[in-house]
Amino acid sequence: MSAARIDLLRAGASAGEIRQACRAAGFSGLTSGLAPGHVQGNIVILPADWADDFLRFCLRNPKPCPLIAVSDPGNPWLADLGRDIDIRTDLPAYRIYENGRLAGETADILRLWRGDFVTFVIGCSYSFEEALSAAGLGVRHIELGCIVPMYRTTIACRPAGRLSGQMVVSMRPYSPEQAIRAIEITARFSAVHGAPVHLGMPDAIGIHDLGRPTFGDAVPIAPGEIPVFWACGYTPQTVIESAAPPIAITHAPGRLLVTDLLNARLAAS
Amino acid sequence: MSAARIDLLRAGASAGEIRQACRAAGFSGLTSGLAPGHVQGNIVILPADWADDFLRFCLRNPKPCPLIAVSDPGNPWLADLGRDIDIRTDLPAYRIYENGRLAGETADILRLWRGDFVTFVIGCSYSFEEALSAAGLGVRHIELGCIVPMYRTTIACRPAGRLSGQMVVSMRPYSPEQAIRAIEITARFSAVHGAPVHLGMPDAIGIHDLGRPTFGDAVPIAPGEIPVFWACGYTPQTVIESAAPPIAITHAPGRLLVTDLLNARLAAS
Repeated sequence: MSAARIDLLRAGASAGEIRQACRAAGFSGLTSGLAPGHVQGNIVILPADWADDFLRFCLRNPKPCPLIAVSDPGNPWLADLGRDIDIRTDLPAYRIYENGRLAGETADILRLWRGDFVTFVIGCSYSFEEALSAAGLGVRHIELGCIVPMYRTTIACRPAGRLSGQMVVSMRPYSPEQAIRAIEITARFSAVHGAPVHLGMPDAIGIHDLGRPTFGDAVPIAPGEIPVFWACGYTPQTVIESAAPPIAITHAPGRLLVTDLLNARLAAS
Repeated sequence: MSAARIDLLRAGASAGEIRQACRAAGFSGLTSGLAPGHVQGNIVILPADWADDFLRFCLRNPKPCPLIAVSDPGNPWLADLGRDIDIRTDLPAYRIYENGRLAGETADILRLWRGDFVTFVIGCSYSFEEALSAAGLGVRHIELGCIVPMYRTTIACRPAGRLSGQMVVSMRPYSPEQAIRAIEITARFSAVHGAPVHLGMPDAIGIHDLGRPTFGDAVPIAPGEIPVFWACGYTPQTVIESAAPPIAITHAPGRLLVTDLLNARLAAS
């Protein structure tokens, strides 16, 4: 763990303080566990001529792509999500994709910014994992200190323009009783993937070996547990990579935008 | 199907008209499908010295015993549930249990009524089955025109005084995606059993042969479907039978109290 991350965790830094640390280039680490209670967002930045397709893609696939905010073209400020958020500097790290291929990772995108860039903020499972933990439901990959296992499925997303592809899901194992409770809880969080998309029968969605996730780390499933699958925010990233726009910018893995929004605000009553 | 039941179905009889038909002894049939949109209730009538135990049993086991109303001792009217409901006459048929054994079935209990009798009205799955159907989720036993399959499980109810026993569950088969949706929908109906108690692993709750339900009819489970189990209103009946109070009166199977209450009123927002 980086020294800067430990400092921010120890200090109980606010969302705004974490963004300031990113902006001052003093922090480039993982954001999980920082600013508890606050919404973190997956970021996708696209030029306007691709943003139209992507906006429709998100609206048609709300479970993998739950939109929390969209910026106006060229406007780097995200006023709805917090005070003084500048998307050009306020992530710990950025990934630049050119024609669908990773071209580099940077600490800011001030020099790359363009007047036609549109920023999309997409909900992330951290919000509902906090609610699961609060309800006494352990989250296996958090307990093990590893990355959630993610799998490419055969579930087709609804296409929009040049964007199409299969849904990526994340998996958390639970006993049947816990799975039912987890469904009840996450159903209230439609702004962050909502209820699961599948459970119990991985082969039915094209997952033939739970021990070999497409992304992230495998986690053990105990006897009496079933795998529960949620739509995953990795989906838009894979769809964009395969559509290969000339340029696309995303957060670096695990380095999300920490907003001033409260997770509790996302939950349906 | 009885001629009287067909008449009531054809005429689109109101809840009050159905109770009047029961009271006039013109109707003794099944109540499923009658007065759509209205709550139907399982009925348990016990003398006051047993009613205390039973009230605590219901409160401790809200999933199998979701209480909709309790009468004052000796008062046969259920004013909260509808206009002019007299529990002594307004069911299609009654079952009398003496010392835990079925002693007879009657059209009314006017002569049996006592000043210490307490009436319990317990929610029934008809309410949530209506919501499942409205959401496009088929209900297998309704499609097949048979009785829902019910199973005694190894899930222990929380005891209260002289009352204890295992939970009885009803089973409806669904694909995993449908099961998730069914959980979301029924979670809103905590007044009528709420979300399922188990799914997918019948052996884990002591059900070793789905083809041989304890009560009701077996239904086929298609490939790609899993069994989903809800707590069942048959639970209190089996618990009372085994505790063997000197007298207990219940509705006859499938012949429930039709109330003026709307199912939609039972759903959480």
